[in-house]
Amino acid sequence: MKNNSLSVIKIGGNIIDNPEASKNFLEKFSDLPGAKILIHGGGKVATQTASRLGIETRMVEGRRITDRAMLEVVTMVYGGLVNKNIVATLQSLKTNAIGLTGADAGIIEAEKRPVKTIDYGYVGDVKSVNSAILTNFLENGLVPVIAPLTFSAAGDLLNTNADTMASAAAVALAGNFNVSLIYCFEKDGVLSDPDNDESVISALEPGLYATYKQSGVINKGMIPKLDNSFDALAKGVGRVVICHAKDLHAAVEGSKGTQIHL
Amino acid sequence: MKNNSLSVIKIGGNIIDNPEASKNFLEKFSDLPGAKILIHGGGKVATQTASRLGIETRMVEGRRITDRAMLEVVTMVYGGLVNKNIVATLQSLKTNAIGLTGADAGIIEAEKRPVKTIDYGYVGDVKSVNSAILTNFLENGLVPVIAPLTFSAAGDLLNTNADTMASAAAVALAGNFNVSLIYCFEKDGVLSDPDNDESVISALEPGLYATYKQSGVINKGMIPKLDNSFDALAKGVGRVVICHAKDLHAAVEGSKGTQIHL
Repeated sequence: MKNNSLSVIKIGGNIIDNPEASKNFLEKFSDLPGAKILIHGGGKVATQTASRLGIETRMVEGRRITDRAMLEVVTMVYGGLVNKNIVATLQSLKTNAIGLTGADAGIIEAEKRPVKTIDYGYVGDVKSVNSAILTNFLENGLVPVIAPLTFSAAGDLLNTNADTMASAAAVALAGNFNVSLIYCFEKDGVLSDPDNDESVISALEPGLYATYKQSGVINKGMIPKLDNSFDALAKGVGRVVICHAKDLHAAVEGSKGTQIHL
Repeated sequence: MKNNSLSVIKIGGNIIDNPEASKNFLEKFSDLPGAKILIHGGGKVATQTASRLGIETRMVEGRRITDRAMLEVVTMVYGGLVNKNIVATLQSLKTNAIGLTGADAGIIEAEKRPVKTIDYGYVGDVKSVNSAILTNFLENGLVPVIAPLTFSAAGDLLNTNADTMASAAAVALAGNFNVSLIYCFEKDGVLSDPDNDESVISALEPGLYATYKQSGVINKGMIPKLDNSFDALAKGVGRVVICHAKDLHAAVEGSKGTQIHL
């Protein structure tokens, strides 16, 4: 089984928000050979839909406060609108996608985040991944498309970070597959100068990462993604790449993006 | 394989709209032994959400005109909000539900309804059911929960009648299972007097149905559901029952609701 390769691909909300970039990415994703999983971010549609419904969006440190009303919005937008449109597009491209939240087939269970200084509301921290059922889907030629929602044993849906879901799924499946974890977003990779899109760091290992972090070279928003990446490698994921969505194939081949190594 | 029984259960939108009735039904559904599939209607939440978004709902002969804006609403509400909340509730009841639209794993493909006198917009008529993948899910202990949305080969999601999806799924799976098709709604069965909830017709066969239809005894809205029922029986479904959602177990055992026979 370990001879089989699997690509776990996270696509950022900024790409999903742009119809042309999204379509372009889905065509590339569809063309990628082998077993694959797509995990998508939320994007701005949730905020726009909330606003149209008269629901105020509150963000703390870049994270969405998810009260009951906002949970309904993200369930509609992430689990319904965004997820099902990706699935329908992939079906038209002859990729047999199956749209899932963490609740579906119990694939990703989480715990509601405990209230410390901030009450994030219905936000989940990943607890476990059902790798057996995901493996079964992959063996049957299905392509899971996962929305950034999980569930608790109590029956609550929970708004959950897609980067974390992607690394948790990659780690859980590393026992059955040679897993590549690919983070696709709207930049060409990890930048040594946030204002210069050409300043892509082509390879990053823990020593260099520590140096860049200390000197403040690496953008603060990138740190959780990189921490996730090194954690995934430490737990058996074969490789991690951070790249522009348009460069998916080149990044998988190793010629674009930032390749993360131990 | 034909020794295995399967219950294909449709739950109406009026039950789904009522939180208490919905919870009560899902508990009964969860307790039902054996392989099972749940197909849910839409309910009034789509109309309410459309109204909150400033989108007008237009109905012709009880059917929703689904333009592009309304398609987004039903995709959010049916495929997201309603479907995922049912799944999360069933998961909390230890039923391993998997929420799907027809597009997911390509389970139910449809054709966009051709425009004759009325343009219904993005509305689908069921073309085919992928019984192999549904059988695989059932054999793996999963409980499919299907929203009233299908897809076309062109990549469009399509608003689709849940009664028809239920009978199409029941017929497609009749080759692999002994299928019971159970329509649950807010009445005790098919009534001989629409104004008298006690007037349940306990058994209905084609001769009696023809007589009742001719005399106008059977409510006009019930005719498509009954036509679907007789069609399903003719195509190999073992039994069809129309019953109140609260009577699910008794109806499966044959002691409540209207039992439809050939």
